[in-house]
Amino acid sequence: MSDPSFLQKKAFIIDMDGVVYHGNRLVPGAEKFVAWLQAEGKRFLFLTNSSERTPRELSQKLARMGLIVSEDHFYTSALATAAFLASQKPNGTAYVIGEPGLITAMHNAGFSLNEVNPDYVVVGDTRSYNFEKIELACRLVTQGARLIGTNPDVSGPTERGLVPSTGALTKPIELTTGARAYFIGKPNPLIMRHALKKLGCTREETAIIGDRMDTDIIAGIESEIETVLVLSGVTRTEDLRNFAYRPHHIIEHLGS
Amino acid sequence: MSDPSFLQKKAFIIDMDGVVYHGNRLVPGAEKFVAWLQAEGKRFLFLTNSSERTPRELSQKLARMGLIVSEDHFYTSALATAAFLASQKPNGTAYVIGEPGLITAMHNAGFSLNEVNPDYVVVGDTRSYNFEKIELACRLVTQGARLIGTNPDVSGPTERGLVPSTGALTKPIELTTGARAYFIGKPNPLIMRHALKKLGCTREETAIIGDRMDTDIIAGIESEIETVLVLSGVTRTEDLRNFAYRPHHIIEHLGS
Repeated sequence: MSDPSFLQKKAFIIDMDGVVYHGNRLVPGAEKFVAWLQAEGKRFLFLTNSSERTPRELSQKLARMGLIVSEDHFYTSALATAAFLASQKPNGTAYVIGEPGLITAMHNAGFSLNEVNPDYVVVGDTRSYNFEKIELACRLVTQGARLIGTNPDVSGPTERGLVPSTGALTKPIELTTGARAYFIGKPNPLIMRHALKKLGCTREETAIIGDRMDTDIIAGIESEIETVLVLSGVTRTEDLRNFAYRPHHIIEHLGS
Repeated sequence: MSDPSFLQKKAFIIDMDGVVYHGNRLVPGAEKFVAWLQAEGKRFLFLTNSSERTPRELSQKLARMGLIVSEDHFYTSALATAAFLASQKPNGTAYVIGEPGLITAMHNAGFSLNEVNPDYVVVGDTRSYNFEKIELACRLVTQGARLIGTNPDVSGPTERGLVPSTGALTKPIELTTGARAYFIGKPNPLIMRHALKKLGCTREETAIIGDRMDTDIIAGIESEIETVLVLSGVTRTEDLRNFAYRPHHIIEHLGS
């Protein structure tokens, strides 16, 4: 492992897909890098825009690949969405189109589920998406519920190729109702602030490591956190010319 | 019934939702107008962007409201889509997300259904819409299938309020794959040409009657067919200021 300056940071916010793993395979170097973090006593938080899984499920997913990291090292757009909505409307109600990771986060933040007159319609990554749910969401939004998406990504990588993500799944509801969804995941600075709080570190003490210019890197830049782009995910060196901003550091992959 | 000049036309293309009925109720005057068409020996065609129902089902729907019109008087975006695709790719293959009205139209136009390597992915109005179908459509489009939508409407009126229509349901596939769907229904001049052929009339002999400026009226204008806006549907007089074009005639409702 070379010794770029960002390794001096006290804390690391680390994206998952394309950074730590692809599907069910660890990225080379990920194991070495996490061992280094643990040996050096660094603080770190895996931060994902995916809203399907709970921290425990993410911890178990890494464990199945041989990486042992306790669940308090994970933070998701589902948790950030629940925390934000609880601050906006304590003990509120929501109709949720999402997986257990999101539903549990909403419950734990004090929300009740409600399909009649909820304060919010919350959409997250989910395969349990169908016309009936879209239709109900449209009716509730027309009646005044606020439309929230956990993350703005239109697609996400899987072993079977790109599949639709929350940004795409929210679109039919936006088009039908004329409402515009508000998204909490990266690059919203809200989720970055939540992540720093959870780390117990300041932005100066922290670096963010990610593979996407339009979520990870811009989130770091707009929150004034040092940014590290890894080339192990969706971004190639030649793609950088399409962006008006630059990451502070570029490395091949974690631990390189 | 007053006697505006468009009644001199030999043939009429008539939109359905908001013109002939709202949900399961006839618009006042619709029955009188159809009786007049039949008594005068006018040619007429009910033309709908909805792609769920076959002409027989549409005929039966009107019959349940007391209007007896034989099924050869109906034309849909599903039929126009099937006819267009058959001209582009005779005996082609398609993966269809849609209702029986669309599937039957595709079969009758010589298409075979195929979920492995179809020439087209065709999306129509349907409640049988879910993540699994979107995911498969995305994979097929990524592999090279062309993405087609029967009609560009993002929503349609029902007894239960606005529900998503094909333009909204196609969006997640467009966003995930980066492909742009091609839509055949109004205002595409293709469906207008098909309608004139079915009527056996020229555009000069024909008027189109509809309630939507962005589909019916613009379709008539771009096909140089005289246009009649009815105010019984979604458009109010004050909405006209939002459009850069004008209908040739404005009436309260059919038969007024």
